[in-house]
Amino acid sequence: MAFSPLLDELVESLRCLPGVGQKTAQRMAFHLLERGRSGGTRLSQALSNAMDGVRRCDNCQNFADSEICGICVKPERRNGTLCVVESPSDLLAIEQAGDYRGGYFVLMGHLSPIDGIGPEEIGIERLLSRVKSEGVSELILATNPTVEGEATAHYIADRLADREILITRLAHGIPVGGELGYVDGFTLTHAFRGRKPLTD
Amino acid sequence: MAFSPLLDELVESLRCLPGVGQKTAQRMAFHLLERGRSGGTRLSQALSNAMDGVRRCDNCQNFADSEICGICVKPERRNGTLCVVESPSDLLAIEQAGDYRGGYFVLMGHLSPIDGIGPEEIGIERLLSRVKSEGVSELILATNPTVEGEATAHYIADRLADREILITRLAHGIPVGGELGYVDGFTLTHAFRGRKPLTD
Repeated sequence: MAFSPLLDELVESLRCLPGVGQKTAQRMAFHLLERGRSGGTRLSQALSNAMDGVRRCDNCQNFADSEICGICVKPERRNGTLCVVESPSDLLAIEQAGDYRGGYFVLMGHLSPIDGIGPEEIGIERLLSRVKSEGVSELILATNPTVEGEATAHYIADRLADREILITRLAHGIPVGGELGYVDGFTLTHAFRGRKPLTD
Repeated sequence: MAFSPLLDELVESLRCLPGVGQKTAQRMAFHLLERGRSGGTRLSQALSNAMDGVRRCDNCQNFADSEICGICVKPERRNGTLCVVESPSDLLAIEQAGDYRGGYFVLMGHLSPIDGIGPEEIGIERLLSRVKSEGVSELILATNPTVEGEATAHYIADRLADREILITRLAHGIPVGGELGYVDGFTLTHAFRGRKPLTD
C-alpha cells in the first residue's frame, strides 16, 4: 500500500496474531480504521498493558498481574489438591468447567529433550518443593494425552514415587455427547478398560 | 479469567477485530503472551499510531498519513482518468491488480437513504468539483455491482449528464479461471450481452 505507511505497518503487525494472514490483516486494519477507531485505541492500550504487566505467578507459574495470581491468593484453593497442566489455556478450560476447586501448577510446556526443554525449563523442581511444603494429598496430572504429555506425567510421578501422595490422571473415554461411530480406537479402548458398574 | 484482569481486558479488546469471538480472542491473547510479546508490543504501537495518525486524503478521501495521500501526490496519476470506488479496500484491490494508472476518488460508502447516507455524506460534491477543476476526460464508476452501488453510480452519472466526459462502468462477466457451470444467471446474462468478436 503506497498510500499510507502507517496502515502498512498496522497490517504487517496484525500478522503476529495466530491464524491471521495478509488478507485477514488487511480486512482487520480497514475495519478498525473505518468503523472501530475507539476499539482499536482500546486494543492498543490493552496490548501494551498486558505485554508489560502480565507476568508468571511465583506460586503456580500461571499468568498473573502480580507476584501471586488470583487463584493462588485464595486460601480455600489450598485444599491439599494440586492439578498440573501444560498451559494457561488448559487451566482456563478446567476453571470454566467449574467443578474443580483445588490449586494448580502450570508447567508452561512439557518435557521435550529434542527441543532442549528439560525439567528445569518447565519448573519441575518448583512443583516438587510445593508438593512437599504444602502438604499436598492428591496430585492430578492433567497434562495432555500426547506422547510428550504422558512422558511429562510419568516423569513427575517417578520423582514423587517415594512420597505417600495420591497421584491421578484424568479419565480418558468417550466425550459427553459424542457418538461411538466417530470415536477413535484408542479412546474406545480406554473407555472399555475404564468401564464402571452402572450403580456407580 | 479470575487470575488476571489485564488478560481479561486484552481478550475483551481483541473482540473488536472482525471475525474474532471469545475463543479466538483467548487463543490470540495466550499466543501473544506465551510466544509473541515483542509482536504484541509492536502491534500495540502500530495500532496507536494508525488510529491517531491515519486520516482521509483531502483530494480523494482515501486513507492517508498526511493531507494528500501517496497516490494523489504523484503528478503522473493526474492523467485525466478518475476511478470512483466505495472503499479503500476496493482501491487496494485495483492497485494490486497493477494495470490502472490514473487517479481515484473513494466514496467511503454508497448512497443509502434508509441509513441517512446521502450525497453529502459520501462526498459527491467534492468529487464533482474535482471532475470540473481537474479536467477529467474519463470517469470510471467502479462501485460494487449491488443495488446501492448501482444507484450510486447512476446518481453520479446523472449529476454529470451535462458535461462532455466519458463515463464508464467496469465490465461484468465470467471471472477469469471460473467455470460456466458455477457462474450465476445474472453474470452469464451480462457475459452474453457483453460478448466481443474473437479478433478484438
